[in-house]
This record gives sequence, structure tokens and C-alpha cells, in this order.
Amino acid sequence: MKRGNFQPLVLHQDRFFDSDPSIRNVARALYDETRELPLICPHGHVDPALLHENAPFPEPTALLITPDHYIFRMLYSRGVSMESLGIPTRDGTAVERDPRSIWQRFADNYYLFRGTPTGVWLDHELYDLFEVRVKLDGGSALVVYDQIAERLASPEFRPRALFDRFNIEVLATTDKATDSLSHHRALRESGWGGRVVPTFRPDALLRVASAHWRDELAELSKACGRTIDTFESFLGALAERRLYFKSLGGAATDHAVVEPYTTRLLPHELDAIFARAANRSATEEDQRLFEAHMLMEMARLSTEDGLVMQLHPGALRDHNHAVHARFGMDMGADIPVATEYTRNLSALLNAYGNDPRLTLVLFTLDETTYARELAPLGGHYPAVRLGPPWWFNDSIEGMTRFRQQVTETASIYNTAGFNDDTRAFCSIPARHDLARRVDANWLAGLVARHVVDLDDARAMARALAYELARDTYRFGTAARYSPPADARVAGARR
Amino acid sequence: MKRGNFQPLVLHQDRFFDSDPSIRNVARALYDETRELPLICPHGHVDPALLHENAPFPEPTALLITPDHYIFRMLYSRGVSMESLGIPTRDGTAVERDPRSIWQRFADNYYLFRGTPTGVWLDHELYDLFEVRVKLDGGSALVVYDQIAERLASPEFRPRALFDRFNIEVLATTDKATDSLSHHRALRESGWGGRVVPTFRPDALLRVASAHWRDELAELSKACGRTIDTFESFLGALAERRLYFKSLGGAATDHAVVEPYTTRLLPHELDAIFARAANRSATEEDQRLFEAHMLMEMARLSTEDGLVMQLHPGALRDHNHAVHARFGMDMGADIPVATEYTRNLSALLNAYGNDPRLTLVLFTLDETTYARELAPLGGHYPAVRLGPPWWFNDSIEGMTRFRQQVTETASIYNTAGFNDDTRAFCSIPARHDLARRVDANWLAGLVARHVVDLDDARAMARALAYELARDTYRFGTAARYSPPADARVAGARR
Amino acid sequence: MKRGNFQPLVLHQDRFFDSDPSIRNVARALYDETRELPLICPHGHVDPALLHENAPFPEPTALLITPDHYIFRMLYSRGVSMESLGIPTRDGTAVERDPRSIWQRFADNYYLFRGTPTGVWLDHELYDLFEVRVKLDGGSALVVYDQIAERLASPEFRPRALFDRFNIEVLATTDKATDSLSHHRALRESGWGGRVVPTFRPDALLRVASAHWRDELAELSKACGRTIDTFESFLGALAERRLYFKSLGGAATDHAVVEPYTTRLLPHELDAIFARAANRSATEEDQRLFEAHMLMEMARLSTEDGLVMQLHPGALRDHNHAVHARFGMDMGADIPVATEYTRNLSALLNAYGNDPRLTLVLFTLDETTYARELAPLGGHYPAVRLGPPWWFNDSIEGMTRFRQQVTETASIYNTAGFNDDTRAFCSIPARHDLARRVDANWLAGLVARHVVDLDDARAMARALAYELARDTYRFGTAARYSPPADARVAGARR
Repeated sequence: MKRGNFQPLVLHQDRFFDSDPSIRNVARALYDETRELPLICPHGHVDPALLHENAPFPEPTALLITPDHYIFRMLYSRGVSMESLGIPTRDGTAVERDPRSIWQRFADNYYLFRGTPTGVWLDHELYDLFEVRVKLDGGSALVVYDQIAERLASPEFRPRALFDRFNIEVLATTDKATDSLSHHRALRESGWGGRVVPTFRPDALLRVASAHWRDELAELSKACGRTIDTFESFLGALAERRLYFKSLGGAATDHAVVEPYTTRLLPHELDAIFARAANRSATEEDQRLFEAHMLMEMARLSTEDGLVMQLHPGALRDHNHAVHARFGMDMGADIPVATEYTRNLSALLNAYGNDPRLTLVLFTLDETTYARELAPLGGHYPAVRLGPPWWFNDSIEGMTRFRQQVTETASIYNTAGFNDDTRAFCSIPARHDLARRVDANWLAGLVARHVVDLDDARAMARALAYELARDTYRFGTAARYSPPADARVAGARR
Repeated sequence: MKRGNFQPLVLHQDRFFDSDPSIRNVARALYDETRELPLICPHGHVDPALLHENAPFPEPTALLITPDHYIFRMLYSRGVSMESLGIPTRDGTAVERDPRSIWQRFADNYYLFRGTPTGVWLDHELYDLFEVRVKLDGGSALVVYDQIAERLASPEFRPRALFDRFNIEVLATTDKATDSLSHHRALRESGWGGRVVPTFRPDALLRVASAHWRDELAELSKACGRTIDTFESFLGALAERRLYFKSLGGAATDHAVVEPYTTRLLPHELDAIFARAANRSATEEDQRLFEAHMLMEMARLSTEDGLVMQLHPGALRDHNHAVHARFGMDMGADIPVATEYTRNLSALLNAYGNDPRLTLVLFTLDETTYARELAPLGGHYPAVRLGPPWWFNDSIEGMTRFRQQVTETASIYNTAGFNDDTRAFCSIPARHDLARRVDANWLAGLVARHVVDLDDARAMARALAYELARDTYRFGTAARYSPPADARVAGARR
Repeated sequence: MKRGNFQPLVLHQDRFFDSDPSIRNVARALYDETRELPLICPHGHVDPALLHENAPFPEPTALLITPDHYIFRMLYSRGVSMESLGIPTRDGTAVERDPRSIWQRFADNYYLFRGTPTGVWLDHELYDLFEVRVKLDGGSALVVYDQIAERLASPEFRPRALFDRFNIEVLATTDKATDSLSHHRALRESGWGGRVVPTFRPDALLRVASAHWRDELAELSKACGRTIDTFESFLGALAERRLYFKSLGGAATDHAVVEPYTTRLLPHELDAIFARAANRSATEEDQRLFEAHMLMEMARLSTEDGLVMQLHPGALRDHNHAVHARFGMDMGADIPVATEYTRNLSALLNAYGNDPRLTLVLFTLDETTYARELAPLGGHYPAVRLGPPWWFNDSIEGMTRFRQQVTETASIYNTAGFNDDTRAFCSIPARHDLARRVDANWLAGLVARHVVDLDDARAMARALAYELARDTYRFGTAARYSPPADARVAGARR
């Protein structure tokens, strides 16, 4: 690569560690013990076709810019149009088609990511994966582009090769309840050794007030090979699909709702809502109640089939109607709202929260609930684990706040370890590395202040980096990783 | 004690202090000035019978595990049944009865408390009070048990001896409004010099929708020696009970409500609610209004009798119905909810907030109110003081957040000092020590960043550790403590 | 000045910087690059008459104590009556009139400001502006008073001389929509070179349920020289007044509401509310809807006239009715409430949030919205910028929390730089200096942890201290400041 007048890109070996030597030295030592551990990826959005087909990745812009709403929303917020970034439109509006010109525009504005996780993830990816050694900016844009493009052409950059290189022990995708899981099936039949598992996400089937609900129901009928036209058959179909997901390695379900309200409806109420939905006349309140009831049913089914239940509430989707109309969903315009857990989850937790067969992983976009509601719930109910900082909170400061606000009440052992929650396959190592560094640094702060001793911190570091995710999702012990002799004290769930 | 292969238990002299030497050295110096100050315990739940009877403490499990919901809720959250921990049941379910076996189970899971205040309090207690020198774990469980048991048998470990050793200047208990305070009376008559005072808590009498309310009213009638059957007589009875508490040294009242709503009802509304309550037909809304009105009456009575008013809102009690049904209340299943102060306290503060005779100490489980509502209220109304971080927030990080979010608006001089809020008598020194260390460290951070100078920090440290609690609750100057000559600048309330 | 036994007042050159040398050294370097930059003051409450008349400031008490509710509310909260501090009353109650006696009372209680921004601002002002070298306390009160009084008498302390000395590039005042702006006009005509501009604040005209609304409307009629008696003429009058403000250099509007609700009303609904208001029968709900609609109209007009729109929601004004009745508004008794942005701003942002002509600066008193709502909105909508920490949050810890909670999602480039928001002209340099120090220190922390490199941090420091405020409010490049050659990368809005 030409260097010219470019600024050097450096990944400091001590990045994200406190500069105080008493903390930094311990952080290094703890990180050194976790950096090589395999990656457990229990929740994410990688397309399984990627690993099934194992085709070369496209050129850099299609790989890194146009599919990543973390990136283009930031440029959009500063007046760079999404059309000029090549984001595909639904309404036929023309968009920029030259990837190099889009890449240049991105690089011109890369300064916007200073101090953001997207910036540090991307720098990691550029440096570590693509061996870029110059800072990305308007001047270096095209040489960086060319270097990435060159790397992507080589066999070592095929998805399965990277899966191995990344040391991924298990990768969970997120899939519609009606998905045929053909790629997952094909992957299992291919003889390739990588563990890629589906996750059951029935959201669209629960949105009975949506204009698309009847289409979703038709897909469910098709998937099950029979007509689904009553609530009872609907519930049975969901139970059946769950088992299908499980048969292909699925470990969990996932549920996105605006409000985590739970309640038990009576059979005739459910029948009536179902009939209105089939009739395209279900209301928003119908949907709210139906979702609330269905969360209860999903918890009940989890006690039977053992799928871990994940709850991701609190995002108001598609806040920007013009952007949604032109570009569709997942365009960086989902905005969080305040979220209540204590009262909303009362029905579900009273029904199933004491059941040792249920694991319910709670996520939030509302950090005010960490110390106030989630840690007390996690520190009491056997079923509850707290998911890692999600989305906007999946960041250096966000992770630190999570540990500081949750640990003292819930302990780390009621948390679910890390997940990368990404559709950007190539960013997976950067995200885990950042999390392991931040956790090592947080633990080092506890050691430096003599809140825990170094032995305890070492066990905690391994739990946070690897064991808690593996055990929460019941992935079992894998060949890839032999715990050190003293790891038993880290405490797998008994 | 045998050491064998046990890990050593160490209490580092600089624990909880920042590792940066510029901060740590100042923290040490400030802590050295407060560590020996007497303990003011203005709010807690120690049983006065303990000090009246002065009997030896029971064996370690009955002392440390079964009465402490901070401990058993954590084990329960990880799947250890409460029955296996010997928690007594109300429904006759059999529970484990062997204290050594319970202790072993606790020690096996003690790693759960890594990085929690319960963990550091208990380590302090083990090391400092019981002179344990090995880390508690499954291996050391029974030698630790035996050592504690041995110490408990000696006269130096009787409650009154510990009261003196702990250097407690005053200890407030929390007592039902209808309590005869027989232990308090006996303590005063015993000639023993320890200052133990009751706190007036009338919550149960205000819950007019509760099935137990008529029993409570009957107890009130009995305590007053006359029939209480109208609102007017009810209010008079409460005023009388307050004076009785005051006559036995009582300094404060305490009020736990879900929502700190205050409003003034009309006499006929009060009569109607009272009649419905007597009739067992009062509604939840009746209770909400009644409590809101009664907080106003309690504030009014405080302006007359001088009892400090404490308000502890925001806990939704007994969230887990199955646990409540089997084990009763205070089982670690109380979960906080978001709490509003600005509008809810408007009526009360407009009526009495400018009255110099009222001191209203506000607590919260909702940290979002620290900077947004509580500090602005405390920094304006003469009557308002902010109570220390409560319950889940009574921790290293929680205390630090409180100082960081409250001080700049309210100043430390509108806060109420520390209280330990504990029923675990033997944990009192550990809790005060932690608070004094955390405050010293926070002040040292201000000194290191030149926000305050060392002289000011020294005065602030004494205020936080001792004077603010003493003065907020109007305990007066005691013989145990002579302030240094320059302490006047710490500013007692004029 | 006599020193006697007084304690020395010292402003440490490294104040507000972390003590860890790896951070402090970088903080110093960054601060050294921003400390001399001109001050942009885009939002504040200085009286323009001050600079127009350019008369000597009054004696110290009238300058520093009686107009500053940050100061007297704190003394009031500790039982010092506002009458004893000389705060003027509306009801004829006599107040202390001796400024030296008030000053003494203030100094006696100055310890209350330990660790508060008011304390550090005032120390800065005393040391740097008035060259005081002794700590203010009861003992030094009157020598400090005399020294300030002596300085104020000299020509170098006239407002315009200080304006130059403070290196203010532009100072925005806040003015009622009906204000004649006579001082602003006179200032422009005076030939004096200082740039002082008005800000359009129509709040009083939107409070249709207020007893004062008809008076406000009459003033609007007078200001426009015609009868305003329909909603249509009302809206036209506001548009006209905006242009008048703009003609005198106005760059922005400002809107204070309790709740930032926005919605579009129909013409007949607006006519009906307007008629009820004219009739003194508008309700609180009328006002809520009217304000919600008018925020939409204000945004629309901003897209036409280019005035930047500022929104300051969430303060419940005049919480203490007795204080309001006796002393009026702005007496330190405004208390924040929880504030919702995601749903409330939906209508406005969907209508104008994608419009490149609108800049909407959002402020909050509810820090829980930083990471949850404001950063996601700012990191998506082109129109949105996040205002700096406001009021109670304008402090060392408050600013640090803002950066930590906002940057990772919104980037610094969607924030609006600093404003001092003060009516205390002499405190302006202290406030900007504190902000520049805190930002330099926060950036130094990023450098020390290798989140950004030093080059990036330097560009970010200049943006935070100067460029973002200048560019958000479209003040243009001024002669006072030539950016270094590499400042282009700091990224002005395209």
C-alpha cells in the first residue's frame, strides 16, 4: 500500500484500558486470558446463506457501507442523502451506483465516527482483517478501497474461512417463524464443521393489527402444510415451528415488542382477536393484548421445549415515515422509548419466573431500568438473566455503565455474557474484542480498588467473555475450549 | 484456624480507593479523620429486643444467612431453593434444618457475591469481627463456620458489648405505630448507657384497602386505650402515638408508599373513606388518596412535634406471589418502579416545605430522580434533605453516583448523611466503613481535580460521616465526639 | 488587599483535569489550544441595556447576589430567608437593604457551594476578574466586598470593556416576541463593534390559558401596528416579528414548554382555541394543543426564514407558590419533570426533520433521555442537534455525563457546542473556561484509552469549544478567529 502523506492507522495494544498503570496492568493480564477464547455468538443477524453459499464477499462498499445502518444513519444525520450512498429504494428513486464514489463520500465524512463504537470497530476491521495501515479519510479513501477489494478476492476471505479464523464456536442467526431454514438445513447436510443455528422470531405473526398479518398467517399455513384458521391451530403451529427450529440446532426464541406487557387472556378473548385479525379489523389495542398474551405462551412453551426466551422491547420502529416509505425498515430511524419491566412482566414472571426450565433473557434500550428494575428482577427470579448492552448501548461507555449499574445488585452471574447482534459478519471479531477489553478493564478497576482479588477477577473475566453466553443459551461444552483447572469456581448454573 | 490449602482473606487498607496515587493519598488522609468517628444510625431495622435481652447471638447460619434477604435472594436467583436454605415457611412446607449444611450450601455459592456490597460487607465482618483469615468458599465453609460459632459464644460478642465496640452513638429502630415499645422502655429503665430510639412507622394503618387494616385499627384502639372509629379519632390517636414514640427518644417517622403522591382531602371525603375501610370495602384508589392525604397530616404533625419525616417510596412489594405465599414478606422480591416527586410532592411542599420546623428526608430507588427532581427540590425547599442511597443503591457505585448526581445542584449540606438501614446488627460497622471510604474517595477526587481544596474536603468528610446525620435527625451533640476546632465551618443548620 | 489570617484563594492551572498524568498532560495540551478562542454565546439572558448603556456595574451585592437565583436558592434551602438577602418582593414585604450586610450573610454561608459549579464559577470570577486572592468566608467577606467595589468603579470594568476583554465574538440575548428591541437597535446604530443579537421567544403568546395572555396579545398588536384578533393574523404577526428579530441580527428562536408535544390542529380547531383565549376561557388542554401546534408552525417558519429553533422543555415553573406570590418568577423554584421526546416530537420531525433548512436544537433537564432518545434522534434526523447540558446539568459532572451518554450514538458533530445561558454577564468567561476544561479532559480520556488519537482530539476540541456553536447558529466565520490549516477536517455542516 502507498503511504504518501497518509496518516498511519494504529491499533494500540492497550486500547480501551484505563491509563492508570495499576488498572492497565491488570486489565492487560485479564484480557490476555480471554482474548483467544472462542467466540460465542448467541444473538445476531448474519444471513445463513452467506455461510451456506460461501461465495466471495462483494466489493467494499456493498460489504461495509450500504448494508450497515449504523454507518449511513450517521451520514444522513449530517445531511448526506441516503440516495447518494446507494441505499436501495422501494419507490424507484434513482440512487448512486458507483461504489467507489460512495466509498469516497463515506471516507470524506469518516471523521463523524470519532469516539463512536462504529469508528473503533471499523478501524479494528480495517487494520486486523484487511491489513490497512493508513487512517481512512478523504485522501486515503481509494487506496483503502482497493486494498480491501484485493483482499476480498482471495480464498482466505471466503465466509467459511473467516468463520474459522474468527474462532467462532457457535453462531446464531435470527429467522422468521415461517422461514424454511433451507440454508440452515443445507449447512448441516454439507458436512462443514461450523456450528450455525437458527433463532425463532415470531414477531410478525403476533402483529395482528398489521396490514401484513394475513400474509404472515398464510406463510405459516404453508410452512405447516395445513390451514391455520383458529387461535388453537395458530398456537399449535407455533409450537411445531419451535420444534423445527430446535431440530436444526436452534437454542432460543426472540421477541421484539414496544412494551414488554404480559397478561393472560381468556380463550374467547383470544378467539375474538384472532377472528378480527383474520378479518383485517384488529385494533392496536387488540395487538397489544395479543402480544402480551403470546409472550406468556412463548414462556410456557419454553418450559416445555427448552428454548431460551429473549425479549428485546422498547424500540419505536420507523420513526421517520418518509425514510420508511422510500427505503423500508432498519434504516437507522428506530428510536427508543422509556420501558417499564416491573409491572409489565408481573404476569409472566409469576407464572413462569420460578420455573427452573425457563431462561428469560431481558434486553433494554432504556438504561434507567438497569439498576432500578432489571438488576432487582435478575437478582431474584431464577428464570431471569440480563442481556448485554443492546444496540445504542453496545459501546465502551454503555458496557461500562451496564456493569456499574447491574453488578452490585444482580451479580455478573445473572447476566448473559456478550452477543454481537450484528448482520456485519466481518465486524464480529472487533465487537467481541471490544467487549472483552472493556470487561477486562472494568474488572481491573475492581481489582485496583480491592473490591475483588485477582483470582476472582480471572474467573469473572472468563465467565463474561465465554462461559456465561455458552451456559445461558445451553450450548454445552465444545471441543474448541478446555477451561483451566480452576474455572469450576466461575460457577456454571447448577 | 487451620489454613491448609485455603486462600487467604485480606482486607486491603486502601480498599475502595482509586488507584491513582493523587487520589488515593488524599482519600487515605480524609478517611483517617473519619474512620474513628462514632456511628450515627438514624434509620435501621435492628430488633430492640436484641439489646434489651443481650443474649448471645445464635449460631452463624441463623445470624448471617436465614434472616438476610440480600443473601438468600441471590442464591435463589441462581436456582438454590429457599427451602434448602432453611427460610421458614408459612404454609408448613418442610425446610432444611441443619445449619452447617445450609452454611455449606451458602459457601459453595459465595462466588455469586463477587463485586457486590453484600460480598464486601460480609468479608469485612468475617475478617474484622470474627477474625477469619481464609476466603469463604466450599472448601473452607465449615472451618469458617466453626470459628464464627466459637467467637459468638464469648461474652465480648454479646449485643451490648458489640454496641460499645462498634462505637454506636445512637441507633434508631423502626417500629409499628401500634408497638408498645416495651423493649425500648425497658432499655431506658435498665440503666445501660446505649442510646437506642424508636421510629414511628404507621404504614399499615394507612393501607385502608388491605385485608389487615381492621386488625391494625384494633391494635391502635388497644394501644390508645379507647375506641377509634372515626377519622378524627384516628388522626388524634396517631398524634398521640407519635408523642409516645418521642417520649422514648424517637426522633423520626418513616413512611413507605409506592407513589409519593400528596393531596388534601376534604373532611367528608376522609370520613367516607374511613367508613368504607371499617366496612372492608375501601378500594385501591381510596387507599391511594388516603395515603396521599395522610402524608400531609404527618408533615403537619412534624411541624408540631418536631419528629423528622422520612419518605421511602417506590418499592412494589411482594412481586413474586408464590414466594410471598410460602415465605411471607421481605423475601428479596420487592422490585422498584419509576417514581415521580416533582408533581407528587407539590401539595405537601407547598403546605409545609417552607416551614423551618419540618425536616423531610426523601429517599428513592429510582436514581433518575437524583439530578432531575430530588437535587432541585433539596436545593430549594428549606424542609427537604436527601436521604443516602437506599437498598439496591447502597453500594460503592451507587453511592458514587449519588454524590456525582446530587452535589452540584443540592450541595452535600442538603443531604442527610449515611444510614445503614440494616436488620443485620453485626454488619453495621462494615456498612459505615464502606460509606466513609467511598465518600473519602469521592472527596479525594474533587481535591485531585482542584474542585475543592483539602481544608474544605476535610470539613466535608466529617459532615458526610457524622455531622449531617446527627444534625438532620436533631440528635444533638454527644459526649462521644468533640469536633475539631475548625469544624464550625462544616455548617450545622442555623 | 490585606491577607491577615485569611486563607489564600488559588485557581489551580490544572483544575477539573483528571489527576492521572496520562490524561492530565493531554488535557492541558488540548485546553491550551482552545482557551484563547473567542467566545460564542448563542443562548443567554444578559440584558442588552447593559451593553447599550455601558454604565458602571452596581456594587458587589447587586451585581452578584440578588439577581442570581443559583445563589440565593441554595441559601434559602438552608433556611436563610430571601428577605434577609434583599430579594425584592412584589407584595411590599420589607427586605434587607444594606448590601454589605447581605454580602456578609452570603459569605457566612459560602461553604454551601463547595463542590458546586456556582462555587467554582464564582471563585474564578473573584480571582480572575476582580483579582481577589483570599478565600471568601465570613472572616474575609468585607475585604472581598471592598476590593470588588473598587474594581467596579474603574473604566476597565464597564460592560463594553469587559465584552472586549472577555473576547466575545457574538452574544445572543433572549427577548419576548413583542419586545421593541430598542436596545438592540440602538447598539447597532451606536457604531460600537460588539456583536449582540436578539433571540425570538414567543412563549407568553402561546400560553393561551394564562391570565396574562390578552395583555400579551395587546402588546403584539401594538408591536405590529394593527389589530390581531384571529389565528391567521396572529400567525402572520409572529412571522413578521421573527423577520424583525432577524433584521437585527437574530439567529434563533427559543421555546420553553413543559412537554415537547407536537401535533397539527385543523384551522377550525385553531380558530376555536383562539376565540376561547380571547374570551379568557381557554383551558389547560387548549393550551397544550395550541403550543403543540405552534411548535410545528415555528419549525415551518424556520424553514422559511432560517432562524435556528431551540426547544427547552421539562421545567415545571414556580413550584413553590408562596415564593412565587411574594417574589415572582425565576426564584430558583423551577423543578424539572421527566420528559418524553420520541413520541412527542414525532409530528414535528416527520413534517420538517428531513428538511435541510431547519436546525432544531433540543435541550433537556432529564438526562435519562440523553442516550435513550436524544442521541438516537440526533444521530438520525438531519435537522436535529443536541444542545449542551442545561441549567442543573451545566456542571463538571453534568457535562461529563452528557459526553459519555451522547457521543457514541450521535457523535459530537450532532451537538451544538457550548452556551452559557446566563444573565450574569461577569460569569461568562468562567462558564466557558469550565466547559473547555471539561471537554479537554474528556477528550484526553479518549486519547489516553486510545479511542481517538491526538490529532482527532485536537480537531474535536476546537469543534466543541468554538466551531459547533458558531456553525449550528450559522454565525459565519468572524475576523476574530482564523482556524488552523487542518481545521477543515473538523467538519462544518455541508
